[in-house]
Order: sequence, then C-alpha cells, then structure tokens
Amino acid sequence: MAEIPENERRILVAVDEGEESMYALSWCLKNLAFQNSKDTLILLYVKPPSTVYSAFDGTGYMFSSEIAASMEKYSQQVADSVIEKAKRLCNNIQNVETKVGHGDPRDVICEMTQKLGADILVMGSHGYGIIKRAFLGSVSNHCAQNAKCPVLIVKKPKSTAGGGDI
Amino acid sequence: MAEIPENERRILVAVDEGEESMYALSWCLKNLAFQNSKDTLILLYVKPPSTVYSAFDGTGYMFSSEIAASMEKYSQQVADSVIEKAKRLCNNIQNVETKVGHGDPRDVICEMTQKLGADILVMGSHGYGIIKRAFLGSVSNHCAQNAKCPVLIVKKPKSTAGGGDI
Repeated sequence: MAEIPENERRILVAVDEGEESMYALSWCLKNLAFQNSKDTLILLYVKPPSTVYSAFDGTGYMFSSEIAASMEKYSQQVADSVIEKAKRLCNNIQNVETKVGHGDPRDVICEMTQKLGADILVMGSHGYGIIKRAFLGSVSNHCAQNAKCPVLIVKKPKSTAGGGDI
Repeated sequence: MAEIPENERRILVAVDEGEESMYALSWCLKNLAFQNSKDTLILLYVKPPSTVYSAFDGTGYMFSSEIAASMEKYSQQVADSVIEKAKRLCNNIQNVETKVGHGDPRDVICEMTQKLGADILVMGSHGYGIIKRAFLGSVSNHCAQNAKCPVLIVKKPKSTAGGGDI
C-alpha cells in the first residue's frame, strides 16, 4: 500500500437532489477521501433562493405567507433528505460535517470554500438541480472560475447504467 | 496511514509553459498521485496549431518554408522543455508517461482523455498559455464541459509568492 499525505485536508462536496452530485460524491470517496484518513469531508447543500420559487407564480400576486411557509417547509425537507442520502454514502468516513446554505448556489458554494477552509471543492458537472439550473446557469462553470481552491468536476458517464464502476 | 485504492488509475495532467499548470501538477502529485502507488501519471503537452503562428504574420503573405521550419523547431523545443520540467517534478512517481499532441488544445486534451483511457484530467485553471488563450479562449472551461472523465481544475493562489504550500 502506498502512503497518503498525513496533513488533514478539508474536502467540500456540493450535493443536490440530482444523481450526478451523488455520483461525484461516490467518486470522491473512492479516489480522494479514504477510510481512516485525517481528511474531513464537508457535505454542502444549498437551498434555492426564494426568487426561484416566485418564478412559479405567474399571476403577478405575492404568495400568501401560508404558501411561502409551505414552500420553505418543503425546501427544508428536500435539504434534509439530500444530506441524509449523502451521509449514508459516507458511512466509512470518520470526519463528516454537513452544512446547509441558502441563496444562489454559485455564490454560496464559492463563499463556503473560503469560509469552511476547503482544500478542494467537488461537484457534479451539471451544476445544481434541474429547475435551479434553468434559472441560474451552470454552477460548476462558475465555481471552476471563481472558487479560490481547486475544483473537481465529476460527470456521470452516460454509458454506465445505474452508476457503473465508481 | 490510511489505505488507498488498489486499482490502477490513469491520471492525465495537461501541462504547458505557464506556472499554473506546474502548480496543478504539484498539487496533483501531493493530493492524488502518491509514491509507489499503481497509478500512472500521463503528462500531456499540446503544441499550438499553425494558425496561431500565422496570426503573427500581418503582411498577408504566407510564411516561407524556412520560417515555418524554424517555428516548428522552436515549438518542439518548448514542448521538450515543458515535458522535461514536468518530468523532474514527478521523480518520485514510478509510472510516468509523456505525450505531445498537436492542434487546438481544447479538442486535443478532450480526445486524449478518451484515447489514453484517463480516469481523471488535471489542469491549471488559466487554460493553456497566454498567447494561445487569447486565440482559443478558456481551455479548462471547455474541457470541464466536454471531457468524458472527471476534471480537476487547479488555480494557483495569488497570495502565495512562489507557489506556497502545494
């Protein structure tokens, strides 16, 4: 067995509800973060900004506070579900932290790399969820250009049914 | 010491005459490719397409064959020099291969990831040399979107004089 660096690295993985980000996490677990190492894996989920929700409202009226609360509740449920799924994948990693952000994922992820002292950012290539992507453009492109740390963009191979050899 | 994967990985590192690509290589050596592992490191340099050279000719005349030969010779010398410098950084790695391509680096690098069976592509964020970048745009952006394998984009920190803690 070869040696790996002894210094602790902080690996930030941006996860979302898409399969691609879970594939990116799995790839990272296999190739970057190893069992029993001193690495810390930080799972980051960014809840969409409220402007994304308001785009569903074509009536010109403001949402009632009841609807807004219901949407916030749903958004929190999605966040919890994604983080829980991601944590299950990391059950062999000693040091796992989780973080839920809020806002434009492009900005939040870049900010978090600095705030959390990330040595590397890992994310899927398709950015950040189907609906959000339509509004916000490619998150991974933005992060590759603007994050201060190295960025690993993992694309899920189209040819492998169900994930393949990750 | 933690365990690292036993399967052989093929790590393709795109290098050029810029400091950033050498920083990316150093980062990769420290964080991805470890001593005595079964990994194979492939150093790829892409010589610029002839259209880049012809852009220097503002006269409207074709270059003489003598000038073209001289430019080709210079281009080869740069390629040799870059590859040699990169190889020196990898002196602790058992399996190092080198490859010199020719053409638009965006296309050549993406093609090579498939041709050489790369499991990951590593490159500097600034793409591919100052002059070529002006003509060809951001190579790293293109590769992040189009390469079939995971892409690791490493940016040289501006704050660290002389490379810092790589």
